Amino acid sequence: MSAKKFILTPEPLTNEAFLPFGEVVDTSNQAPVMINQGTTERYDNLAKVECLGDGSYAAINLFRAQPRQLPMRIHMLEKHPYGSQSFHPLSHEPYLVLVARGVAQPKADDLRLFLARADQGINYRHDTWHHPVLGLNKICDFLVVDRKGDGLNCDEYYFDEDTFIEIQR
Amino acid sequence: MSAKKFILTPEPLTNEAFLPFGEVVDTSNQAPVMINQGTTERYDNLAKVECLGDGSYAAINLFRAQPRQLPMRIHMLEKHPYGSQSFHPLSHEPYLVLVARGVAQPKADDLRLFLARADQGINYRHDTWHHPVLGLNKICDFLVVDRKGDGLNCDEYYFDEDTFIEIQR
Repeated sequence: MSAKKFILTPEPLTNEAFLPFGEVVDTSNQAPVMINQGTTERYDNLAKVECLGDGSYAAINLFRAQPRQLPMRIHMLEKHPYGSQSFHPLSHEPYLVLVARGVAQPKADDLRLFLARADQGINYRHDTWHHPVLGLNKICDFLVVDRKGDGLNCDEYYFDEDTFIEIQR
Repeated sequence: MSAKKFILTPEPLTNEAFLPFGEVVDTSNQAPVMINQGTTERYDNLAKVECLGDGSYAAINLFRAQPRQLPMRIHMLEKHPYGSQSFHPLSHEPYLVLVARGVAQPKADDLRLFLARADQGINYRHDTWHHPVLGLNKICDFLVVDRKGDGLNCDEYYFDEDTFIEIQR
């Protein structure tokens, strides 16, 4: 079999486009409710934190990501079978979000690459194939909400070496 | 009874000082673990998201807070008996965190006022008396993780009108 080549360029991140994979956390898709004696707008319930399994709970973490250099070859994806995982950018920089449909194994044909704005977080639904965080431009912090608990909560999939997948600008 | 006057000025927010009320979410208190093929530092499990009661779950929300003007009189506190509530600043501005010990009702003597840096989030443990979000300087966004589910999850306490509590710089 000859090598297959997949070149990915980012599309804008919208709630509608991301719906098969999870939720976008921004202020664009709902009218806020006013709380705290009229001093605060609440954009409510933008994403659901999933924690599957008895005794599991959600935790808040910080990830500090090195910037990626483009073009960049993609070798693998991961997923978390027992919980969602959310990323919210704290460093005012856009970032890339690479996901794929399919539960048993992802296919290169099914990859979707999004460019998230600096004011957009995302929440991967449980069992959703995604690439580890892809910061751009500089070292970037992300607030991460994910699951703690028993069970091996990370599956990895490595694409065949003959499958050439590259992210370009 | 004559009026009692309480003037609050902020102290620095540290994990140790905030321990009776919850957790500080920043990078100062632990060494990170390296993940994602050496591209990302993970500051792990900085705060626990509490969701009490069957069928409850955690949700991610955005709060957009008007800036408060100081000096500011304090009239009330609130608490959430069935879940934690976390705030993480997204607008690169410091903010104030006002909390009090005591479960049945807070006392003005027990108030603690902290100045959180722009890179510090906080997580109020369930049943912890706190003031609604106190943004400063400009309209500020906060990422908020709290509980969804059955039950009245907000208690409020209004101080007696004779108890004069004021936040000063």
